[in-house]
Amino acid sequence: MSIKISFIGAGSVRYTVKLVGDLAKTKELNDSLVSLMDIDEERLEAVYNLCKRYNEEIGGNLKFEKTLDREKSLREADFVINTALYRAPGHEDGYVSYEIMRDVAEKYGYYRGIDSQEFNMVSDYYTFTNYNHLKMSLDIARSVEKICPNAWLIQTANPVFEITQLIKRLTNVKVIGFCHGVEGIFEVLKALGIDKKDTDWQIAGVNHGIWLNRFLYKGENAYPLLDEWIEKESKNWESTNPWDTHLCPAVIDMYQFYGLLPIGDTTRNGSWKYHHSLEAKKRWYGKFGGIDNEVERPKFYEELRQIKRMIMEVSKNPKIKITENWPEEFPKEKLSGEQQIPFINALTNNIEVRLFLNVLNNGTIQEIPDDIVVEVPVKVNKNGIFPEKIEPDLPEKIKKYYLTPRIMRMEMALDAFITGDRKILEEVLVRDPRTKNYDDIPKLWDEIFNLPFNKEMKEHYNKYK
Amino acid sequence: MSIKISFIGAGSVRYTVKLVGDLAKTKELNDSLVSLMDIDEERLEAVYNLCKRYNEEIGGNLKFEKTLDREKSLREADFVINTALYRAPGHEDGYVSYEIMRDVAEKYGYYRGIDSQEFNMVSDYYTFTNYNHLKMSLDIARSVEKICPNAWLIQTANPVFEITQLIKRLTNVKVIGFCHGVEGIFEVLKALGIDKKDTDWQIAGVNHGIWLNRFLYKGENAYPLLDEWIEKESKNWESTNPWDTHLCPAVIDMYQFYGLLPIGDTTRNGSWKYHHSLEAKKRWYGKFGGIDNEVERPKFYEELRQIKRMIMEVSKNPKIKITENWPEEFPKEKLSGEQQIPFINALTNNIEVRLFLNVLNNGTIQEIPDDIVVEVPVKVNKNGIFPEKIEPDLPEKIKKYYLTPRIMRMEMALDAFITGDRKILEEVLVRDPRTKNYDDIPKLWDEIFNLPFNKEMKEHYNKYK
Repeated sequence: MSIKISFIGAGSVRYTVKLVGDLAKTKELNDSLVSLMDIDEERLEAVYNLCKRYNEEIGGNLKFEKTLDREKSLREADFVINTALYRAPGHEDGYVSYEIMRDVAEKYGYYRGIDSQEFNMVSDYYTFTNYNHLKMSLDIARSVEKICPNAWLIQTANPVFEITQLIKRLTNVKVIGFCHGVEGIFEVLKALGIDKKDTDWQIAGVNHGIWLNRFLYKGENAYPLLDEWIEKESKNWESTNPWDTHLCPAVIDMYQFYGLLPIGDTTRNGSWKYHHSLEAKKRWYGKFGGIDNEVERPKFYEELRQIKRMIMEVSKNPKIKITENWPEEFPKEKLSGEQQIPFINALTNNIEVRLFLNVLNNGTIQEIPDDIVVEVPVKVNKNGIFPEKIEPDLPEKIKKYYLTPRIMRMEMALDAFITGDRKILEEVLVRDPRTKNYDDIPKLWDEIFNLPFNKEMKEHYNKYK
Repeated sequence: MSIKISFIGAGSVRYTVKLVGDLAKTKELNDSLVSLMDIDEERLEAVYNLCKRYNEEIGGNLKFEKTLDREKSLREADFVINTALYRAPGHEDGYVSYEIMRDVAEKYGYYRGIDSQEFNMVSDYYTFTNYNHLKMSLDIARSVEKICPNAWLIQTANPVFEITQLIKRLTNVKVIGFCHGVEGIFEVLKALGIDKKDTDWQIAGVNHGIWLNRFLYKGENAYPLLDEWIEKESKNWESTNPWDTHLCPAVIDMYQFYGLLPIGDTTRNGSWKYHHSLEAKKRWYGKFGGIDNEVERPKFYEELRQIKRMIMEVSKNPKIKITENWPEEFPKEKLSGEQQIPFINALTNNIEVRLFLNVLNNGTIQEIPDDIVVEVPVKVNKNGIFPEKIEPDLPEKIKKYYLTPRIMRMEMALDAFITGDRKILEEVLVRDPRTKNYDDIPKLWDEIFNLPFNKEMKEHYNKYK
């Protein structure tokens, strides 16, 4: 069945190329119509060019269209993949404004910025200062609601938790949040020397706060293998790169307190104990201090920008065989491991698959409210999305001490955004352990509002009262 | 109907005398058998003497017994009033160990002690360091379960929230938590110049975290009258004593953020913004800085001790007519306003009454779990306790931003106490904004455990692991 897939924010070059590659390699889908949409014409041209060449080199039959017009792209779309990150006029990418807002906050003593919070230390997962991006993401969802109300909206850009929840709350769009954090489990299996074929595992929680609730190896509880590794091997552990934190001391510490292993980005989302300084980060995340710090994060953004510039260059040189010259970026056969295309294939062609998606809880995790977006294992086929029974249940400690306060912060971010009540934004900092002077809180927010790219945010938060 | 009421911790002299006075003045109950129990023989003698004289002077027909044996007192009891506060051997009262533990914590930078926490700043509402008192309270409940399982346990000693919840969780005792904080509403009515006869109000939440959800004056919303008072009068407000905080700037600030007026002790239980220093307390609670600070709190304890000593003296001089010489402490006709005796009278003699009690939620406050102890208006009569429908519902902000984190801290205190897992106690401080050095946390707890009166606590928290 030929379908139409709209990529909103297609100028997120690497992501788009990767997913288009997956599409071209998926035989049931490789005659789909791919509609690439971005507001950046130059980037759109580049990605259009590369996607076409990639499809050709792989031998796919995808059809492509490109447009600067969101609504045009959405027309008759069956699936909408949203990877768009808000970018202020004149900025190279969305990270520029993130870094500017972080700098303002650090001047007031908020190390790593306002949005770095207990249980959310990921440096580009902005929830409180991120008005522009939340607004744009909501606008995209509203366009979907208007133009292609039956389409699935595949929310891929972060903050997945807050955006998916926001769209669920304010629209009727069939939105699902996507993240690949769950793959962190494979790093753990590798370290323990366990073949994944022999394992049975479940992971559940909220986005970037997920836990290995079931872990069996050849039918037996495999946690003792982890305990053994901790006893014997953990002292020799060292991170090989800033992302390699799957079994770092912070993870072991979280495991020993909460009773389950945190998986994927969850390892980065502990309390300030692990994050209050670069030194603390190095002690708990290995020699790089993880990726969420003042040394590694700027390097990473620079890396992303270099790859993007390189890709732009390649797009202008049609003679280069991209799969041959950049096999890592454009592999010929290997799928990316991202969940988006298997999700589409399962719904469209009934190729059933197990995925980890962000969907409304509706009783999946007991005691968490039904209307909260959770990240849980699901079976997807032509009949829909079916969450697995979470078994064993998450421990009370994780629900009460970790998920509940994380959910509260999501609620505060959404309430502030929806109501325009700046007192909620201020209250977030009233409760922030980094606050030295409560009288500075309104000043800090004023400074954030007065940044040139936050004009609309300022108006929004001044409407109230 | 003649009933037996057991007073456990009867040596809490003032409380016992006050409630016995209410009993003697309540005609349907004034032939009851009052069983006074305490482990302090001298205090027990004094209170026994005073209660008998008070009863006589009033003209009541109460019968009295006294005993050092808890189980003996509980035999055939219909109601058990627990006012006992744990007192370490050699200490004048329970506050001595509280102050010692506070001093230890302050040495590590925890102003007002470990137990002062966001949404619980009441200086003698100890939840985390209070092993001895929680243990004793639970033991009393277990005796009730064994000796008089059909009796109602009237939990009067603080922390009412944590103790009531603990007893509900670990026993089958019919326990109800009692507090008089709700009376704070009358101070508000007085300030607004409103006659209570013309009002209709409801207050709901958790103990020391209660909110005026319904407030009608002559059938109309009375909140505009409060708003008017705030606009015109609040600038002239000054506290007349350390307890006079019902309309202080902190309360107005909380009202303006949460949307409802906090009542009673709730006014003392905001965030660190109001409490981080004596200066802050004075700014937000008036010139005394409230009662929860280093100046007023020791004065208050000294006052209590002086009254107690005075009462002990009086007990030794049988010639003094107490109601004539101390009409404030021993009023002849006026009831104390405490809820315990009207509660007993309603259940026993069907004298229906509206009270504010701490009972299992079971849907009374929507979205709060059923098994959480909430403080809500109830109708009591011979058929039982019937919570009113909370109408209008508490705002989402109060449930999500205030009650939920307060409930989380209760859960952490109970989990630590029940499991003996000291990592939970440490985690409380990991999340505490006052923490300067995370490595000090275990040291601080060791120092608390090593206090001579915490021997049992130390053993309890060393069992684990």
